[in-house]
Amino acid sequence: MDVYAKNCPSRQVLDRIGDTWSVLILLALTGGPRRYSQLQATIADISPKMLTQTLRGLERDGLVTRTVHAVVPPRVDYALTALGVSLHDLLESMRVWAEGHIDDVESARAAYDRRS
Amino acid sequence: MDVYAKNCPSRQVLDRIGDTWSVLILLALTGGPRRYSQLQATIADISPKMLTQTLRGLERDGLVTRTVHAVVPPRVDYALTALGVSLHDLLESMRVWAEGHIDDVESARAAYDRRS
Repeated sequence: MDVYAKNCPSRQVLDRIGDTWSVLILLALTGGPRRYSQLQATIADISPKMLTQTLRGLERDGLVTRTVHAVVPPRVDYALTALGVSLHDLLESMRVWAEGHIDDVESARAAYDRRS
Repeated sequence: MDVYAKNCPSRQVLDRIGDTWSVLILLALTGGPRRYSQLQATIADISPKMLTQTLRGLERDGLVTRTVHAVVPPRVDYALTALGVSLHDLLESMRVWAEGHIDDVESARAAYDRRS
C-alpha cells in the first residue's frame, strides 16, 4: 500500500482518520459506549445531520457499532469496535499535538498575515 | 484547550493535521527539502491549484518554509520547520495505521453495504 498513489484505498482511510468530526466522535467514545444525545452534548456545535452522517460512515468503516435497545423510548448506543480502539493512541496523540501546539500555529499565522 | 469546544482554535489545528493533502505533503517533506515539481510528482493526483493552496496553508501555519533561490529559472524549495518536524511521528503513525488497516476497513464496508 502506498498512500501517495492515485486511488490507493489507504488514502480513503487517511481521509477518515483525518476528518475532524470523526476524530472528535471517536475520542468521545474512548470512555465507553455513548448515546446519540450524549455525543451531541459532548461535541457542542455538531449538527444532527452531520453527527448522523459521520456515525454512519464510522459504522460502515467498522470503527463504531450501533446498538438499538428495545426499550420505550428506544435507546441507541454507539461504541468503538476493536478496530476503533486500535486507533485510540493515534487520535489521542493528534489531540495532544493540536492542544499543545495551537499557540505556535496561531503565532505563525499572525506573522504570515502581517507579511502578506 | 478543549478540542470538543465550539470555536476552539485547537480544532483548527486538528483540521490541518487531518487534511489528507496536508498529511501527504508533510510526509513527502520528511526526507528533506523538495521542489514544487518533486512534490507534484510524489503526490500523483494532486492538482496544481490544490498543491499551491495547501502549501500556502502549511506555510501560514508555520509547518513549512518556502525558499526562492535566485537562479535562472528561479527554484522554489519547500522544507519542514521545527514545528513541522514535531508532527513527523504522528503523521507516520497515521500512514502506518492507514496502510495496515485498509483490509479491515474494506471488509467492514463490504459487509455494511451487503446489510443495507
